[in-house]
Amino acid sequence: MNNMVDTLIDKIQEKNAPIVVGLDPQAKFIPSHIMEEAIAKHGETLEAMGEAFWQFNRLIIDATFELIPAVKPQIAMYEQYGLPGLEAYKKTVDLCKERGLVVIGDVKRGDIGSTSESYAIGHLGKVKVGNTEIVPFDTDYVTVNPYLGTDGVKPFVDVCAKEGKGIFVLCKTSNPSSGEFQDREIDGKPLYYHVAKKIEEWGADVVGTHGYSAVGAVVGATYPEQGKAIREYIPKAYILVPGYGAQGGKGKDLVHFFDKDGLGAIVNSSRGIIAAYKQEKYASYGEQNFAVAARAAVCDMIEDINGALGRL
Amino acid sequence: MNNMVDTLIDKIQEKNAPIVVGLDPQAKFIPSHIMEEAIAKHGETLEAMGEAFWQFNRLIIDATFELIPAVKPQIAMYEQYGLPGLEAYKKTVDLCKERGLVVIGDVKRGDIGSTSESYAIGHLGKVKVGNTEIVPFDTDYVTVNPYLGTDGVKPFVDVCAKEGKGIFVLCKTSNPSSGEFQDREIDGKPLYYHVAKKIEEWGADVVGTHGYSAVGAVVGATYPEQGKAIREYIPKAYILVPGYGAQGGKGKDLVHFFDKDGLGAIVNSSRGIIAAYKQEKYASYGEQNFAVAARAAVCDMIEDINGALGRL
Repeated sequence: MNNMVDTLIDKIQEKNAPIVVGLDPQAKFIPSHIMEEAIAKHGETLEAMGEAFWQFNRLIIDATFELIPAVKPQIAMYEQYGLPGLEAYKKTVDLCKERGLVVIGDVKRGDIGSTSESYAIGHLGKVKVGNTEIVPFDTDYVTVNPYLGTDGVKPFVDVCAKEGKGIFVLCKTSNPSSGEFQDREIDGKPLYYHVAKKIEEWGADVVGTHGYSAVGAVVGATYPEQGKAIREYIPKAYILVPGYGAQGGKGKDLVHFFDKDGLGAIVNSSRGIIAAYKQEKYASYGEQNFAVAARAAVCDMIEDINGALGRL
Repeated sequence: MNNMVDTLIDKIQEKNAPIVVGLDPQAKFIPSHIMEEAIAKHGETLEAMGEAFWQFNRLIIDATFELIPAVKPQIAMYEQYGLPGLEAYKKTVDLCKERGLVVIGDVKRGDIGSTSESYAIGHLGKVKVGNTEIVPFDTDYVTVNPYLGTDGVKPFVDVCAKEGKGIFVLCKTSNPSSGEFQDREIDGKPLYYHVAKKIEEWGADVVGTHGYSAVGAVVGATYPEQGKAIREYIPKAYILVPGYGAQGGKGKDLVHFFDKDGLGAIVNSSRGIIAAYKQEKYASYGEQNFAVAARAAVCDMIEDINGALGRL
């Protein structure tokens, strides 16, 4: 059985790009020609927004997939538009898989044991109907919330071991109030340290050939000091780093999320890439060429991070 | 604007039943005649399981809705079967609303601010497509995970205030390892106390006419001591109590989750009701009459809890 963290590392090395593009469409990012066409076809319905998201994503994926190892669709953006939104999520995941990308479903699920097992199977595994095994959502990784403890996370790890998939467990999140609980001290260390230690334990049996585990950690780019500490504290956990760009993180702040070989972390940017055409820097591409603007933003992000890592 | 906690309390009083039925179908609960018919129609596909879940739920809802104030579909059970599973979730929610039930979507979502807002709108609010407002999933309450802190929860509260909806925030969950993080002491009190305090703060502006807030707490029936402590500590939070029956909780253990008027808590049972026909006690109903068995189990649960509360 292949280990998904090895696949991820191989692709990062092949593309020389430790980045992931967050496919988090919002209505305000969709160029008017796409939105108008979708409404002309489906009326002002959820189906129209699902169609608009799909057309938007499709063009961004095709403009960027050669440059990147992975994508991270945020399911909330799709779920917001009900079933047609979730259909766009599924089509997006499937196209990214066809294009050879590692797909990280940013679902932040987590529940009691038997229920977490259902989520794990739905997003990383196969369900049985009669004697037929079916893949419901074909993602390679999902993000998982640790608040319920080991028996809420372990079913995901079991499916990872069985199917060669991976998870990133929330550790120190990128948002301003993440410290409210995560930074509170327990036995002299913040809660996120205790979560980090468990992440290492949970992943002990799914370590791949590069020495990293299929059970990784989410640590926000907005907290570089904590990122450095967690990198040293749990050396086998790959770190998924959201919060680059729009949320404030920069390449030079992120150096210590990586190990000495430039591995160990993958940095996500969402609106900084997919809505690049709305930034002054990329405005000259124009709304029609939003996907080309996204590609330019990907190149700049890779340069920023590889420059900071000294490997341009 | 109506407050959803008032609606919930009115329905609990009207039915004299502080209980909620967990509509958490699993393949192993579906009677063979329903499963066979679904497979005959759709083959061994996700659509077949979605159809089977829907037929199963439909009959249970119609056999029990007159007796109960609320239902709690666990979305993971449906999400496990992809889009057709989620279609069964939506149809279940819609039928329950038609039957006048308060619908608690057990989704345990929670993310950074802008993303939580998408979840909140998707499950409790309305999205706009063009100039048209649409309700994606028409639930009255959802469960929310607090790990990301105030800016992950506040978008849900804002939608509750705007739409007259409610949330239950995970506080002390029912599973065996919930204590791993939730019980760890911070400044001399367990983490779940700190979460409870925040739940009270988050709900301060959405208190209804009965003195309870639309922001409630999830506290497992399996932890009666903690339930008692939380009841006293945050008197305005309605408590959603999972873990009755199959997970081990009994009516007499749950008395202290309630206030002196018998309000303040609503107790969930899932497989103890919907799969009652598989228990020895209800086996004589037979698989064909699973919905009648569910109704009998509802009556017994109401009697158990009202008996413990001294209000039969």
